[in-house]
Amino acid sequence: MAEKRYLLTPGPTPVPPEVLAELAKPVIHHRERDYREIYERCLLRLQEVYRTKNDVLMFTTSGTGAFESAVANLTSAGDRQLVLSAGNFGERWAGMAKAFGADLVHARLEWGETPEPEDLRSALSDAGDVKVVYLTHSETSTGVVCDVQGLAAVAKEAGALVVVDAVSSLGAVPLEMDDWGLDVVVSGSQKALMTPPGLATAAVSAAGWEQVARSTLPSFYFNWERTRKAQEQVDSAFTPAVSLIVALDVALGLLLDGGLDDAFERHLRLGRACRAGIKAMGLELFSPDEDRSAVVTAVRMPDGMDSAELARALRDRHGITIAGGQGELKGVIFRIGHIGWYDEFDIATALSAVELVLGELGAPIERGQAATRALEVYAEGATV
Amino acid sequence: MAEKRYLLTPGPTPVPPEVLAELAKPVIHHRERDYREIYERCLLRLQEVYRTKNDVLMFTTSGTGAFESAVANLTSAGDRQLVLSAGNFGERWAGMAKAFGADLVHARLEWGETPEPEDLRSALSDAGDVKVVYLTHSETSTGVVCDVQGLAAVAKEAGALVVVDAVSSLGAVPLEMDDWGLDVVVSGSQKALMTPPGLATAAVSAAGWEQVARSTLPSFYFNWERTRKAQEQVDSAFTPAVSLIVALDVALGLLLDGGLDDAFERHLRLGRACRAGIKAMGLELFSPDEDRSAVVTAVRMPDGMDSAELARALRDRHGITIAGGQGELKGVIFRIGHIGWYDEFDIATALSAVELVLGELGAPIERGQAATRALEVYAEGATV
Repeated sequence: MAEKRYLLTPGPTPVPPEVLAELAKPVIHHRERDYREIYERCLLRLQEVYRTKNDVLMFTTSGTGAFESAVANLTSAGDRQLVLSAGNFGERWAGMAKAFGADLVHARLEWGETPEPEDLRSALSDAGDVKVVYLTHSETSTGVVCDVQGLAAVAKEAGALVVVDAVSSLGAVPLEMDDWGLDVVVSGSQKALMTPPGLATAAVSAAGWEQVARSTLPSFYFNWERTRKAQEQVDSAFTPAVSLIVALDVALGLLLDGGLDDAFERHLRLGRACRAGIKAMGLELFSPDEDRSAVVTAVRMPDGMDSAELARALRDRHGITIAGGQGELKGVIFRIGHIGWYDEFDIATALSAVELVLGELGAPIERGQAATRALEVYAEGATV
Repeated sequence: MAEKRYLLTPGPTPVPPEVLAELAKPVIHHRERDYREIYERCLLRLQEVYRTKNDVLMFTTSGTGAFESAVANLTSAGDRQLVLSAGNFGERWAGMAKAFGADLVHARLEWGETPEPEDLRSALSDAGDVKVVYLTHSETSTGVVCDVQGLAAVAKEAGALVVVDAVSSLGAVPLEMDDWGLDVVVSGSQKALMTPPGLATAAVSAAGWEQVARSTLPSFYFNWERTRKAQEQVDSAFTPAVSLIVALDVALGLLLDGGLDDAFERHLRLGRACRAGIKAMGLELFSPDEDRSAVVTAVRMPDGMDSAELARALRDRHGITIAGGQGELKGVIFRIGHIGWYDEFDIATALSAVELVLGELGAPIERGQAATRALEVYAEGATV
């Protein structure tokens, strides 16, 4: 019998069968009327998910391509830019801004810290005149979700544009692009938007467009102005990944039909449940034990054990995929994603399997508690 | 009843059901063993299709992204580069090289002309010391397929690197990367590789890598060195479009199992058949009436008629998608793609439908000949 597989990583995430079915339909042409209807609706749905009236620009690329589009379209020779990082994806902003020649100030917190408005205020005050601030809403490498609203307010106060990586947060935790005054928000298809990887998006505020007009870096594939002009005609600048866009439209329909607020609440409860189960097992959380941390739960490995070994055993013996640590956290933590098409029984599966394998590996853990505790906590969180 | 649809454009092209079925399978993680086996095999199959021992770098992007990767990785401040163009995609090379600050010489032939080795020799001799020459193997906007082997020889003689757009030619007409001494060949998933759009590739020769080492332009998402290092570990620098890669692997398997030479012969016969049918209808070919022109057949509209009207009627009344003209050829020509998962009855369908609609629009055409003539010519071309 074919082995059952469980994809429980922070991305790519499981895709609902209705969305997978769309991918198996014959390819349609991107300048066809049928496609254009779908594409137009998909762009409108993205605005709803972003909670913005700004255009949401769509690119056929990984999430990192949307990052690059932001740097390439916003960077002007001599402008100072600031990255506030506390993990792998924050560092990616810094690596990229530096590669493209920005006058970069990198305020680097320890991996796993939660960037606070005060951190940003002090970094901005040290840095002087900063034009662009790059933030990471959900730092997938550590499980930290920051107070991007509070951080954005500090950046705006200092007269800087706010650019937010919302790749793993959009559709999972509250993000209000317009109400919070975010200037640029980038995301990807393969997390809470429940679609395979290959599409990424960037929404841009009016102030963002003013900076684009001043940008001196060249861009072509990722050029925002070209993309906006094409989208105004319900067109694409280049042949898009039509199959993925048709699938994304269906996935966004599922998300919005269920209600964004319901999705946020479900993620919050999944996060609570996962943390409660981990604690019941006697393991130490690496990500913060707080409601905002609703996207990924990061857990310290017991002393002297390597998370790569846990991940390998889960995959090879049980068909379950979780994530290890990235960069400096390699081997030190493991991560359970609970994003998108995911429910409490996925949490129970993840916890049961981790418990089983850690037991086999001889880790000093509490047996028989985690899954039950997680389901209890999930149930307690239900709105009555 | 649901309307039957026929995708007869030069891209995206029809995708075989075996390939579509792969897209509907649950998403797997890009660092999983199962995925890595598929990915490794897919990269090896790409080398077979490219007929190269060089690494084939894979990007989640439209074909234009692979173009951009070439310009970004090969351009060094002050180096002169030459584009030989005769249509929309040649012009794209020029627009891009210019946007990224190359010292560009643009040898522009009329749209629809066939670039000849002599044209390149004379352009190179006028231009002086040229480091990089950009060519378009199959100019999808005009239907012209050039003698890229002969052109490459001239460029190499002048000491320049040869960069080839093979987006619509790879897998459709002969291309021998190593034997012909091509330095960089870029392509895309959505033409003869029979996969939906969203993946693009770039193969790079040893001389190409030497130029990369000299390049002074920044790159991140499209950085070749980063991509090569990841691929050496059967890894991806960024989350790839896993579903499309799994599908591409199956499509390449179909292509190679049938035999590349058989695919080239089929395309050649499809081209002959299409042209014979068009002539039997009394229409004038825009693309050359020669065997190399086996990818797209471009046809002049009868005097005073607009190809957009033909395309619209085909689509709205008959569910058939063909392509109009691009840029300066808008309205003037229409194009029938015969690329990838395509047989002689697709040609017969395209011709019958064009005949029907042109007749309805009152064009002075010969009725009742085209499809029959096309099928005869296709049959004549069979290897006995």
